[in-house]
Amino acid sequence: MNTSTSVSAPATLSLSPREARLLFRTGQYSGYTSSFSEGYVQGSLCILPQEYALDFATYCHRNPKAAPLIAIGNAGDPFLPMLGEDLDIRTDVPRYMVFRDGELVEEPTDIKHVWRDDLVAFVWGCGFSFEHALMEAGVSLRDVARGDNVVMYETNIDTLPVGAFAGKLIVTMRPLVPADAIRAIQVTSRFTSVHGAPIHIGKPELIGISDLEKPLFNGNPPRVRACEIPVFWACGVTARLAIHRARLPFCITHNPGSMVIADQPNSSLAIF
Amino acid sequence: MNTSTSVSAPATLSLSPREARLLFRTGQYSGYTSSFSEGYVQGSLCILPQEYALDFATYCHRNPKAAPLIAIGNAGDPFLPMLGEDLDIRTDVPRYMVFRDGELVEEPTDIKHVWRDDLVAFVWGCGFSFEHALMEAGVSLRDVARGDNVVMYETNIDTLPVGAFAGKLIVTMRPLVPADAIRAIQVTSRFTSVHGAPIHIGKPELIGISDLEKPLFNGNPPRVRACEIPVFWACGVTARLAIHRARLPFCITHNPGSMVIADQPNSSLAIF
Repeated sequence: MNTSTSVSAPATLSLSPREARLLFRTGQYSGYTSSFSEGYVQGSLCILPQEYALDFATYCHRNPKAAPLIAIGNAGDPFLPMLGEDLDIRTDVPRYMVFRDGELVEEPTDIKHVWRDDLVAFVWGCGFSFEHALMEAGVSLRDVARGDNVVMYETNIDTLPVGAFAGKLIVTMRPLVPADAIRAIQVTSRFTSVHGAPIHIGKPELIGISDLEKPLFNGNPPRVRACEIPVFWACGVTARLAIHRARLPFCITHNPGSMVIADQPNSSLAIF
Repeated sequence: MNTSTSVSAPATLSLSPREARLLFRTGQYSGYTSSFSEGYVQGSLCILPQEYALDFATYCHRNPKAAPLIAIGNAGDPFLPMLGEDLDIRTDVPRYMVFRDGELVEEPTDIKHVWRDDLVAFVWGCGFSFEHALMEAGVSLRDVARGDNVVMYETNIDTLPVGAFAGKLIVTMRPLVPADAIRAIQVTSRFTSVHGAPIHIGKPELIGISDLEKPLFNGNPPRVRACEIPVFWACGVTARLAIHRARLPFCITHNPGSMVIADQPNSSLAIF
Protein backbone atom coordinates (compact mmCIF):
# COMPACT_ATOMS: atom_id res chain seq x y z
CA MET A 1 0.00 0.00 0.00
CA ASN A 2 1.32 3.43 -0.93
CA THR A 3 0.85 5.53 2.21
CA SER A 4 3.03 8.38 0.99
CA THR A 5 0.14 10.10 -0.81
CA SER A 6 -1.32 12.75 1.43
CA VAL A 7 -5.11 13.08 0.88
CA SER A 8 -6.71 16.25 2.18
CA ALA A 9 -10.50 16.42 2.55
CA PRO A 10 -11.12 19.52 0.40
CA ALA A 11 -9.15 18.08 -2.53
CA THR A 12 -10.97 14.76 -2.44
CA LEU A 13 -14.38 16.44 -2.62
CA SER A 14 -13.65 17.49 -6.19
CA LEU A 15 -12.38 14.08 -7.37
CA SER A 16 -14.58 12.41 -9.96
CA PRO A 17 -16.17 9.14 -8.77
CA ARG A 18 -13.78 7.22 -11.05
CA GLU A 19 -10.74 9.06 -9.67
CA ALA A 20 -11.90 8.32 -6.13
CA ARG A 21 -12.42 4.63 -6.94
CA LEU A 22 -8.96 4.37 -8.49
CA LEU A 23 -7.49 5.80 -5.28
CA PHE A 24 -9.32 3.12 -3.27
CA ARG A 25 -8.44 0.41 -5.81
CA THR A 26 -4.75 1.15 -5.60
CA GLY A 27 -4.79 1.08 -1.80
CA GLN A 28 -4.07 4.79 -1.35
CA TYR A 29 -7.11 5.39 0.89
CA SER A 30 -9.12 3.06 3.11
CA GLY A 31 -11.31 5.33 5.29
CA TYR A 32 -14.67 7.12 5.17
CA THR A 33 -16.02 8.25 1.81
CA SER A 34 -18.17 11.19 2.94
CA SER A 35 -15.44 13.66 1.97
CA PHE A 36 -15.12 12.29 -1.58
CA SER A 37 -16.75 13.25 -4.90
CA GLU A 38 -19.27 15.78 -3.68
CA GLY A 39 -22.63 15.55 -5.43
CA TYR A 40 -22.33 11.90 -6.51
CA VAL A 41 -24.31 8.89 -5.36
CA GLN A 42 -22.86 6.79 -2.53
CA GLY A 43 -24.42 3.47 -1.61
CA SER A 44 -24.31 0.60 0.87
CA LEU A 45 -22.96 -2.74 -0.30
CA CYS A 46 -23.55 -6.36 0.44
CA ILE A 47 -22.32 -9.38 -1.44
CA LEU A 48 -24.08 -12.70 -0.86
CA PRO A 49 -23.96 -16.25 -2.21
CA GLN A 50 -26.55 -16.68 -4.98
CA GLU A 51 -28.63 -19.08 -2.87
CA TYR A 52 -29.57 -16.13 -0.61
CA ALA A 53 -29.81 -13.51 -3.36
CA LEU A 54 -33.47 -13.95 -4.33
CA ASP A 55 -34.52 -13.72 -0.68
CA PHE A 56 -32.43 -10.58 -0.16
CA ALA A 57 -33.75 -8.97 -3.37
CA THR A 58 -37.28 -9.75 -2.17
CA TYR A 59 -36.51 -8.38 1.32
CA CYS A 60 -35.33 -5.11 -0.23
CA HIS A 61 -38.39 -5.01 -2.51
CA ARG A 62 -40.77 -5.45 0.43
CA ASN A 63 -38.92 -2.84 2.51
CA PRO A 64 -38.13 -0.28 -0.19
CA LYS A 65 -37.82 2.74 2.07
CA ALA A 66 -35.13 1.06 4.18
CA ALA A 67 -33.32 -0.72 1.35
CA PRO A 68 -33.88 1.10 -1.95
CA LEU A 69 -31.79 -1.04 -4.33
CA ILE A 70 -29.89 0.90 -6.94
CA ALA A 71 -27.99 -2.08 -8.39
CA ILE A 72 -28.08 -5.89 -8.48
CA GLY A 73 -25.02 -7.51 -10.05
CA ASN A 74 -24.90 -10.67 -12.13
CA ALA A 75 -23.86 -13.79 -10.20
CA GLY A 76 -20.08 -14.14 -10.22
CA ASP A 77 -19.54 -10.86 -12.06
CA PRO A 78 -17.67 -8.24 -9.99
CA PHE A 79 -18.38 -5.42 -12.45
CA LEU A 80 -21.35 -3.10 -11.94
CA PRO A 81 -21.51 -1.05 -15.16
CA MET A 82 -24.87 0.44 -14.13
CA LEU A 83 -22.98 2.31 -11.39
CA GLY A 84 -19.69 3.02 -13.18
CA GLU A 85 -18.15 1.87 -16.44
CA ASP A 86 -15.13 0.14 -14.91
CA LEU A 87 -16.47 -0.29 -11.38
CA ASP A 88 -14.95 -3.46 -9.91
CA ILE A 89 -16.76 -4.17 -6.67
CA ARG A 90 -13.83 -6.33 -5.43
CA THR A 91 -11.45 -3.36 -5.22
CA ASP A 92 -13.30 -0.06 -5.55
CA VAL A 93 -14.60 0.33 -1.99
CA PRO A 94 -12.02 1.63 0.53
CA ARG A 95 -12.62 -1.12 3.12
CA TYR A 96 -14.83 -4.19 3.44
CA MET A 97 -16.07 -6.52 6.17
CA VAL A 98 -16.00 -10.28 5.53
CA PHE A 99 -18.28 -12.49 7.62
CA ARG A 100 -18.27 -16.28 8.00
CA ASP A 101 -21.16 -17.90 9.87
CA GLY A 102 -22.15 -14.46 11.07
CA GLU A 103 -18.73 -13.65 12.55
CA LEU A 104 -16.54 -10.85 11.29
CA VAL A 105 -13.33 -12.52 10.14
CA GLU A 106 -11.55 -9.81 8.18
CA GLU A 107 -11.67 -6.09 7.26
CA PRO A 108 -9.67 -6.04 4.03
CA THR A 109 -9.16 -3.21 1.54
CA ASP A 110 -9.97 -5.53 -1.36
CA ILE A 111 -11.84 -8.82 -1.63
CA LYS A 112 -10.20 -10.44 -4.65
CA HIS A 113 -8.92 -13.29 -2.46
CA VAL A 114 -12.43 -14.22 -1.27
CA TRP A 115 -14.36 -13.59 -4.51
CA ARG A 116 -16.39 -16.56 -5.78
CA ASP A 117 -18.38 -17.41 -8.91
CA ASP A 118 -21.63 -17.62 -6.96
CA LEU A 119 -21.51 -14.15 -5.36
CA VAL A 120 -24.13 -11.49 -6.13
CA ALA A 121 -23.53 -7.81 -5.28
CA PHE A 122 -26.31 -5.50 -4.07
CA VAL A 123 -26.02 -1.73 -3.69
CA TRP A 124 -28.71 0.39 -2.07
CA GLY A 125 -29.06 4.13 -1.76
CA CYS A 126 -28.22 6.23 1.26
CA GLY A 127 -29.44 9.49 2.72
CA PHE A 128 -26.22 11.32 1.76
CA SER A 129 -27.86 11.73 -1.64
CA PHE A 130 -30.78 13.85 -0.46
CA GLU A 131 -28.84 15.92 2.07
CA HIS A 132 -27.32 18.00 -0.70
CA ALA A 133 -30.78 18.63 -2.19
CA LEU A 134 -32.08 19.58 1.27
CA MET A 135 -29.30 22.09 1.79
CA GLU A 136 -29.85 23.50 -1.72
CA ALA A 137 -33.51 23.95 -0.76
CA GLY A 138 -32.40 26.01 2.24
CA VAL A 139 -33.00 23.33 4.89
CA SER A 140 -30.46 23.70 7.67
CA LEU A 141 -28.90 20.35 8.66
CA ARG A 142 -27.08 20.68 11.96
CA ASP A 143 -25.31 17.33 11.92
CA VAL A 144 -23.86 18.00 8.47
CA ALA A 145 -22.85 21.52 9.52
CA ARG A 146 -21.13 20.11 12.64
CA GLY A 147 -19.37 17.39 10.63
CA ASP A 148 -21.15 14.75 12.76
CA ASN A 149 -22.71 11.61 11.37
CA VAL A 150 -26.48 11.71 11.33
CA VAL A 151 -27.97 10.03 14.42
CA MET A 152 -29.71 6.65 14.15
CA TYR A 153 -32.30 4.82 16.25
CA GLU A 154 -33.89 1.39 16.37
CA THR A 155 -37.68 1.62 16.11
CA ASN A 156 -40.32 -0.88 17.24
CA ILE A 157 -41.44 -1.30 13.60
CA ASP A 158 -40.81 -4.77 12.16
CA THR A 159 -39.58 -4.94 8.59
CA LEU A 160 -41.43 -7.44 6.41
CA PRO A 161 -39.34 -10.60 6.77
CA VAL A 162 -38.19 -12.79 3.87
CA GLY A 163 -36.38 -16.06 4.52
CA ALA A 164 -33.48 -15.40 6.90
CA PHE A 165 -33.80 -11.61 6.57
CA ALA A 166 -35.78 -9.76 9.23
CA GLY A 167 -35.45 -7.19 12.01
CA LYS A 168 -36.56 -3.80 13.23
CA LEU A 169 -36.58 -0.70 11.05
CA ILE A 170 -33.60 1.58 11.76
CA VAL A 171 -34.15 5.30 11.18
CA THR A 172 -32.05 8.42 10.90
CA MET A 173 -33.30 11.60 12.56
CA ARG A 174 -32.76 15.22 11.66
CA PRO A 175 -34.10 17.94 14.00
CA LEU A 176 -35.76 20.64 11.89
CA VAL A 177 -37.80 23.78 12.53
CA PRO A 178 -41.38 23.25 11.32
CA ALA A 179 -41.05 25.15 8.03
CA ASP A 180 -37.89 23.18 7.21
CA ALA A 181 -39.63 19.93 8.19
CA ILE A 182 -42.37 20.63 5.64
CA ARG A 183 -39.84 21.55 2.95
CA ALA A 184 -37.79 18.43 3.77
CA ILE A 185 -40.86 16.23 3.24
CA GLN A 186 -41.42 17.85 -0.15
CA VAL A 187 -37.79 17.59 -1.26
CA THR A 188 -37.11 14.01 -0.12
CA SER A 189 -40.38 12.73 -1.61
CA ARG A 190 -38.70 13.17 -4.99
CA PHE A 191 -35.81 10.89 -3.95
CA THR A 192 -37.57 7.52 -3.96
CA SER A 193 -34.29 5.65 -4.65
CA VAL A 194 -32.70 7.00 -1.48
CA HIS A 195 -35.32 6.40 1.23
CA GLY A 196 -37.83 8.95 -0.09
CA ALA A 197 -40.16 10.84 2.24
CA PRO A 198 -39.76 10.56 6.03
CA ILE A 199 -41.48 7.60 7.69
CA HIS A 200 -42.37 9.57 10.84
CA ILE A 201 -42.38 13.10 12.22
CA GLY A 202 -42.50 14.29 15.83
CA LYS A 203 -43.55 11.98 18.71
CA PRO A 204 -40.61 9.53 18.81
CA GLU A 205 -42.39 7.40 21.45
CA LEU A 206 -44.97 6.31 18.83
CA ILE A 207 -42.25 4.37 16.99
CA GLY A 208 -40.58 3.00 20.10
CA ILE A 209 -37.87 5.58 20.62
CA SER A 210 -37.87 6.44 24.33
CA ASP A 211 -34.89 8.81 24.49
CA LEU A 212 -33.82 10.90 21.52
CA GLU A 213 -30.62 11.81 23.30
CA LYS A 214 -29.45 8.18 23.23
CA PRO A 215 -28.94 7.25 19.59
CA LEU A 216 -27.55 3.92 18.33
CA PHE A 217 -23.84 3.20 17.94
CA ASN A 218 -22.84 5.75 20.60
CA GLY A 219 -23.74 8.65 18.31
CA ASN A 220 -23.50 12.16 19.69
CA PRO A 221 -26.73 13.25 21.45
CA PRO A 222 -28.57 15.46 18.94
CA ARG A 223 -29.89 17.94 21.57
CA VAL A 224 -33.20 18.68 19.84
CA ARG A 225 -34.22 22.30 20.53
CA ALA A 226 -37.67 23.38 21.70
CA CYS A 227 -38.35 25.01 18.32
CA GLU A 228 -37.53 21.83 16.41
CA ILE A 229 -39.42 18.70 15.35
CA PRO A 230 -37.58 15.39 14.97
CA VAL A 231 -37.98 14.09 11.41
CA PHE A 232 -37.30 10.38 10.84
CA TRP A 233 -36.20 8.67 7.61
CA ALA A 234 -35.79 4.93 6.99
CA CYS A 235 -32.09 4.07 7.08
CA GLY A 236 -30.01 1.68 4.96
CA VAL A 237 -28.44 0.27 8.11
CA THR A 238 -31.74 -1.66 8.48
CA ALA A 239 -30.74 -4.05 5.70
CA ARG A 240 -27.18 -4.27 6.98
CA LEU A 241 -28.42 -5.40 10.41
CA ALA A 242 -30.87 -7.85 8.77
CA ILE A 243 -27.88 -9.41 7.00
CA HIS A 244 -25.88 -9.69 10.25
CA ARG A 245 -28.90 -11.17 11.98
CA ALA A 246 -29.25 -13.81 9.24
CA ARG A 247 -25.77 -15.14 10.14
CA LEU A 248 -25.16 -16.43 6.62
CA PRO A 249 -22.33 -18.90 6.03
CA PHE A 250 -20.59 -16.18 4.02
CA CYS A 251 -21.15 -12.54 3.18
CA ILE A 252 -19.30 -9.31 2.58
CA THR A 253 -20.40 -5.73 3.30
CA HIS A 254 -18.79 -2.33 3.04
CA ASN A 255 -17.09 -1.08 6.21
CA PRO A 256 -19.33 1.52 7.93
CA GLY A 257 -18.85 4.92 6.30
CA SER A 258 -16.74 3.42 3.52
CA MET A 259 -19.24 3.29 0.69
CA VAL A 260 -19.57 2.53 -3.01
CA ILE A 261 -19.21 5.78 -5.03
CA ALA A 262 -21.17 5.70 -8.31
CA ASP A 263 -20.83 7.80 -11.48
CA GLN A 264 -24.39 9.15 -11.20
CA PRO A 265 -24.94 12.60 -9.71
CA ASN A 266 -27.32 12.64 -6.73
CA SER A 267 -29.76 14.65 -8.82
CA SER A 268 -30.21 11.62 -11.11
CA LEU A 269 -31.96 9.82 -8.24
CA ALA A 270 -34.72 12.42 -8.01
CA ILE A 271 -37.80 11.40 -9.99
CA PHE A 272 -38.17 14.99 -11.21
CA MET B 1 -68.52 -23.28 -14.05
CA ASN B 2 -71.67 -21.41 -13.10
CA THR B 3 -72.59 -19.41 -16.19
CA SER B 4 -76.05 -18.51 -14.96
CA THR B 5 -74.78 -15.43 -13.13
CA SER B 6 -75.26 -12.42 -15.36
CA VAL B 7 -72.44 -9.92 -14.82
CA SER B 8 -73.08 -6.43 -16.16
CA ALA B 9 -70.16 -4.02 -16.49
CA PRO B 10 -71.61 -1.19 -14.39
CA ALA B 11 -72.31 -3.53 -11.46
CA THR B 12 -68.83 -5.05 -11.52
CA LEU B 13 -67.16 -1.62 -11.40
CA SER B 14 -68.40 -1.21 -7.85
CA LEU B 15 -67.33 -4.66 -6.61
CA SER B 16 -64.58 -4.60 -4.00
CA PRO B 17 -61.33 -6.23 -5.14
CA ARG B 18 -62.05 -9.17 -2.83
CA GLU B 19 -65.57 -9.60 -4.23
CA ALA B 20 -64.18 -9.52 -7.76
CA ARG B 21 -61.50 -12.11 -6.91
CA LEU B 22 -64.12 -14.42 -5.34
CA LEU B 23 -66.13 -14.23 -8.57
CA PHE B 24 -63.04 -15.27 -10.53
CA ARG B 25 -62.08 -17.90 -7.94
CA THR B 26 -65.47 -19.58 -8.17
CA GLY B 27 -65.38 -19.66 -11.97
CA GLN B 28 -68.20 -17.14 -12.45
CA TYR B 29 -66.17 -14.86 -14.70
CA SER B 30 -63.13 -15.51 -16.90
CA GLY B 31 -62.79 -12.42 -19.12
CA TYR B 32 -61.19 -8.96 -19.04
CA THR B 33 -60.83 -7.19 -15.71
CA SER B 34 -60.93 -3.56 -16.90
CA SER B 35 -64.61 -3.27 -15.96
CA PHE B 36 -64.03 -4.49 -12.37
CA SER B 37 -63.34 -2.69 -9.08
CA GLU B 38 -62.89 0.84 -10.35
CA GLY B 39 -60.10 2.74 -8.62
CA TYR B 40 -58.12 -0.31 -7.47
CA VAL B 41 -54.71 -1.51 -8.60
CA GLN B 42 -54.55 -4.09 -11.37
CA GLY B 43 -51.28 -5.80 -12.26
CA SER B 44 -49.59 -8.16 -14.68
CA LEU B 45 -48.63 -11.62 -13.46
CA CYS B 46 -45.93 -14.13 -14.16
CA ILE B 47 -45.06 -17.24 -12.22
CA LEU B 48 -41.65 -18.80 -12.77
CA PRO B 49 -39.58 -21.66 -11.36
CA GLN B 50 -37.27 -20.39 -8.61
CA GLU B 51 -34.14 -21.05 -10.69
CA TYR B 52 -35.19 -18.17 -12.99
CA ALA B 53 -36.62 -15.92 -10.29
CA LEU B 54 -33.46 -13.99 -9.33
CA ASP B 55 -32.76 -13.23 -12.99
CA PHE B 56 -36.33 -12.04 -13.53
CA ALA B 57 -36.29 -9.90 -10.37
CA THR B 58 -33.01 -8.38 -11.58
CA TYR B 59 -34.45 -7.83 -15.09
CA CYS B 60 -37.38 -5.95 -13.58
CA HIS B 61 -35.04 -3.96 -11.31
CA ARG B 62 -32.87 -2.89 -14.27
CA ASN B 63 -35.92 -1.98 -16.38
CA PRO B 64 -38.14 -0.42 -13.72
CA LYS B 65 -40.22 1.76 -16.02
CA ALA B 66 -41.31 -1.26 -18.08
CA ALA B 67 -41.67 -3.73 -15.21
CA PRO B 68 -42.34 -1.90 -11.95
CA LEU B 69 -42.67 -4.82 -9.51
CA ILE B 70 -45.40 -4.42 -6.92
CA ALA B 71 -45.09 -7.91 -5.41
CA ILE B 72 -42.69 -10.85 -5.26
CA GLY B 73 -44.11 -13.98 -3.66
CA ASN B 74 -42.31 -16.52 -1.53
CA ALA B 75 -41.20 -19.66 -3.40
CA GLY B 76 -43.97 -22.25 -3.37
CA ASP B 77 -46.41 -19.94 -1.57
CA PRO B 78 -49.49 -19.07 -3.66
CA PHE B 79 -50.66 -16.35 -1.27
CA LEU B 80 -49.73 -12.71 -1.81
CA PRO B 81 -50.87 -10.93 1.37
CA MET B 82 -49.13 -7.71 0.31
CA LEU B 83 -51.75 -7.44 -2.46
CA GLY B 84 -54.79 -8.87 -0.67
CA GLU B 85 -55.34 -10.66 2.61
CA ASP B 86 -56.66 -13.89 1.12
CA LEU B 87 -55.31 -13.46 -2.39
CA ASP B 88 -54.58 -16.93 -3.81
CA ILE B 89 -52.69 -16.43 -7.05
CA ARG B 90 -53.68 -19.96 -8.24
CA THR B 91 -57.38 -19.07 -8.49
CA ASP B 92 -57.93 -15.31 -8.22
CA VAL B 93 -57.15 -14.27 -11.79
CA PRO B 94 -59.95 -14.85 -14.32
CA ARG B 95 -57.80 -16.69 -16.86
CA TYR B 96 -54.16 -17.79 -17.16
CA MET B 97 -51.74 -18.92 -19.85
CA VAL B 98 -49.52 -21.92 -19.14
CA PHE B 99 -46.34 -22.31 -21.20
CA ARG B 100 -44.02 -25.31 -21.51
CA ASP B 101 -40.73 -24.87 -23.39
CA GLY B 102 -42.06 -21.56 -24.65
CA GLU B 103 -45.25 -23.03 -26.14
CA LEU B 104 -48.71 -22.13 -24.89
CA VAL B 105 -50.22 -25.40 -23.70
CA GLU B 106 -53.31 -24.30 -21.77
CA GLU B 107 -55.47 -21.27 -20.92
CA PRO B 108 -57.11 -22.41 -17.68
CA THR B 109 -59.25 -20.43 -15.24
CA ASP B 110 -57.21 -21.75 -12.31
CA ILE B 111 -53.71 -23.22 -12.01
CA LYS B 112 -54.05 -25.45 -8.96
CA HIS B 113 -53.31 -28.52 -11.09
CA VAL B 114 -49.96 -27.13 -12.27
CA TRP B 115 -48.82 -25.42 -9.05
CA ARG B 116 -45.40 -26.49 -7.74
CA ASP B 117 -43.32 -25.90 -4.63
CA ASP B 118 -40.60 -24.10 -6.58
CA LEU B 119 -42.82 -21.45 -8.21
CA VAL B 120 -42.37 -17.73 -7.51
CA ALA B 121 -45.09 -15.21 -8.42
CA PHE B 122 -44.29 -11.71 -9.68
CA VAL B 123 -46.84 -8.91 -10.11
CA TRP B 124 -46.00 -5.61 -11.76
CA GLY B 125 -48.02 -2.44 -12.15
CA CYS B 126 -49.95 -1.34 -15.21
CA GLY B 127 -50.97 1.97 -16.71
CA PHE B 128 -54.62 1.46 -15.76
CA SER B 129 -53.60 2.83 -12.37
CA PHE B 130 -52.60 6.26 -13.59
CA GLU B 131 -55.38 6.67 -16.16
CA HIS B 132 -57.87 7.44 -13.42
CA ALA B 133 -55.52 10.07 -11.95
CA LEU B 134 -55.07 11.56 -15.43
CA MET B 135 -58.81 11.83 -15.96
CA GLU B 136 -59.25 13.35 -12.49
CA ALA B 137 -56.63 15.94 -13.47
CA GLY B 138 -58.75 16.82 -16.49
CA VAL B 139 -56.64 15.03 -19.09
CA SER B 140 -58.87 13.72 -21.87
CA LEU B 141 -58.04 10.10 -22.80
CA ARG B 142 -59.69 9.18 -26.08
CA ASP B 143 -59.02 5.46 -25.97
CA VAL B 144 -60.58 5.15 -22.53
CA ALA B 145 -63.55 7.30 -23.63
CA ARG B 146 -64.06 5.09 -26.68
CA GLY B 147 -63.74 1.88 -24.67
CA ASP B 148 -60.72 0.86 -26.74
CA ASN B 149 -57.57 -0.64 -25.32
CA VAL B 150 -54.65 1.76 -25.33
CA VAL B 151 -52.43 1.29 -28.39
CA MET B 152 -48.98 -0.32 -28.08
CA TYR B 153 -45.80 -0.22 -30.17
CA GLU B 154 -42.44 -1.94 -30.26
CA THR B 155 -39.58 0.57 -30.03
CA ASN B 156 -35.97 0.18 -31.15
CA ILE B 157 -34.83 0.59 -27.52
CA ASP B 158 -33.21 -2.51 -26.02
CA THR B 159 -34.10 -3.34 -22.44
CA LEU B 160 -31.10 -4.14 -20.22
CA PRO B 161 -30.83 -7.94 -20.52
CA VAL B 162 -30.40 -10.32 -17.57
CA GLY B 163 -29.83 -14.05 -18.15
CA ALA B 164 -32.52 -15.32 -20.54
CA PHE B 165 -34.59 -12.12 -20.26
CA ALA B 166 -34.14 -9.48 -22.97
CA GLY B 167 -35.97 -7.71 -25.78
CA LYS B 168 -37.15 -4.36 -27.07
CA LEU B 169 -39.05 -1.87 -24.94
CA ILE B 170 -42.79 -1.90 -25.64
CA VAL B 171 -44.65 1.38 -25.13
CA THR B 172 -48.22 2.57 -24.90
CA MET B 173 -49.19 5.82 -26.61
CA ARG B 174 -51.83 8.37 -25.74
CA PRO B 175 -52.44 11.28 -28.14
CA LEU B 176 -52.79 14.48 -26.08
CA VAL B 177 -53.11 18.17 -26.79
CA PRO B 178 -49.94 19.98 -25.60
CA ALA B 179 -51.40 21.34 -22.34
CA ASP B 180 -52.68 17.85 -21.46
CA ALA B 181 -49.31 16.34 -22.40
CA ILE B 182 -47.58 18.63 -19.90
CA ARG B 183 -50.15 17.83 -17.20
CA ALA B 184 -49.85 14.10 -17.95
CA ILE B 185 -46.07 14.25 -17.41
CA GLN B 186 -46.65 15.93 -14.05
CA VAL B 187 -49.35 13.51 -12.91
CA THR B 188 -47.69 10.26 -13.99
CA SER B 189 -44.32 11.28 -12.50
CA ARG B 190 -45.95 10.65 -9.12
CA PHE B 191 -46.83 7.06 -10.10
CA THR B 192 -43.37 5.49 -10.06
CA SER B 193 -44.82 2.01 -9.30
CA VAL B 194 -46.87 2.04 -12.49
CA HIS B 195 -44.42 3.13 -15.21
CA GLY B 196 -44.03 6.71 -13.96
CA ALA B 197 -43.33 9.59 -16.32
CA PRO B 198 -43.45 9.08 -20.09
CA ILE B 199 -40.26 7.76 -21.74
CA HIS B 200 -40.77 9.81 -24.93
CA ILE B 201 -42.94 12.57 -26.35
CA GLY B 202 -43.56 13.52 -29.99
CA LYS B 203 -41.31 12.29 -32.85
CA PRO B 204 -42.12 8.56 -32.88
CA GLU B 205 -39.40 7.93 -35.51
CA LEU B 206 -36.71 8.68 -32.89
CA ILE B 207 -37.67 5.52 -31.00
CA GLY B 208 -38.13 3.35 -34.07
CA ILE B 209 -41.89 3.73 -34.62
CA SER B 210 -42.39 4.32 -38.35
CA ASP B 211 -46.19 4.37 -38.51
CA LEU B 212 -48.32 5.44 -35.55
CA GLU B 213 -51.41 4.17 -37.32
CA LYS B 214 -50.11 0.58 -37.18
CA PRO B 215 -49.94 -0.39 -33.52
CA LEU B 216 -48.99 -3.84 -32.21
CA PHE B 217 -51.47 -6.68 -31.76
CA ASN B 218 -53.83 -5.34 -34.47
CA GLY B 219 -54.94 -2.47 -32.23
CA ASN B 220 -57.26 0.15 -33.67
CA PRO B 221 -55.35 2.95 -35.46
CA PRO B 222 -55.27 5.86 -32.99
CA ARG B 223 -55.76 8.59 -35.66
CA VAL B 224 -53.60 11.22 -33.98
CA ARG B 225 -54.99 14.68 -34.73
CA ALA B 226 -52.94 17.63 -35.97
CA CYS B 227 -53.43 19.41 -32.62
CA GLU B 228 -52.12 16.40 -30.64
CA ILE B 229 -48.71 15.13 -29.55
CA PRO B 230 -48.13 11.39 -29.10
CA VAL B 231 -47.02 10.66 -25.52
CA PHE B 232 -45.28 7.32 -24.87
CA TRP B 233 -45.11 5.36 -21.63
CA ALA B 234 -43.14 2.16 -20.94
CA CYS B 235 -45.56 -0.79 -20.99
CA GLY B 236 -45.73 -3.92 -18.83
CA VAL B 237 -46.09 -6.04 -21.95
CA THR B 238 -42.31 -5.55 -22.32
CA ALA B 239 -41.65 -8.00 -19.48
CA ARG B 240 -44.33 -10.38 -20.74
CA LEU B 241 -42.65 -10.56 -24.17
CA ALA B 242 -39.22 -10.96 -22.50
CA ILE B 243 -40.62 -14.01 -20.69
CA HIS B 244 -42.02 -15.49 -23.90
CA ARG B 245 -38.72 -14.84 -25.66
CA ALA B 246 -36.85 -16.69 -22.88
CA ARG B 247 -38.78 -19.89 -23.73
CA LEU B 248 -38.48 -21.21 -20.20
CA PRO B 249 -39.21 -24.90 -19.54
CA PHE B 250 -42.26 -23.77 -17.57
CA CYS B 251 -44.06 -20.52 -16.79
CA ILE B 252 -47.50 -19.10 -16.23
CA THR B 253 -48.81 -15.61 -17.02
CA HIS B 254 -52.16 -13.89 -16.79
CA ASN B 255 -54.26 -13.97 -19.97
CA PRO B 256 -54.08 -10.59 -21.75
CA GLY B 257 -56.55 -8.17 -20.17
CA SER B 258 -57.31 -10.60 -17.35
CA MET B 259 -55.26 -9.12 -14.53
CA VAL B 260 -54.55 -9.46 -10.80
CA ILE B 261 -56.83 -7.10 -8.84
CA ALA B 262 -55.26 -5.90 -5.57
CA ASP B 263 -56.81 -4.40 -2.44
CA GLN B 264 -54.82 -1.16 -2.75
CA PRO B 265 -56.48 1.86 -4.31
CA ASN B 266 -54.63 3.31 -7.30
CA SER B 267 -53.93 6.42 -5.25
CA SER B 268 -51.74 4.34 -2.91
CA LEU B 269 -49.24 3.93 -5.76
CA ALA B 270 -48.64 7.68 -6.05
CA ILE B 271 -45.59 8.78 -4.09
CA PHE B 272 -47.51 11.86 -2.93
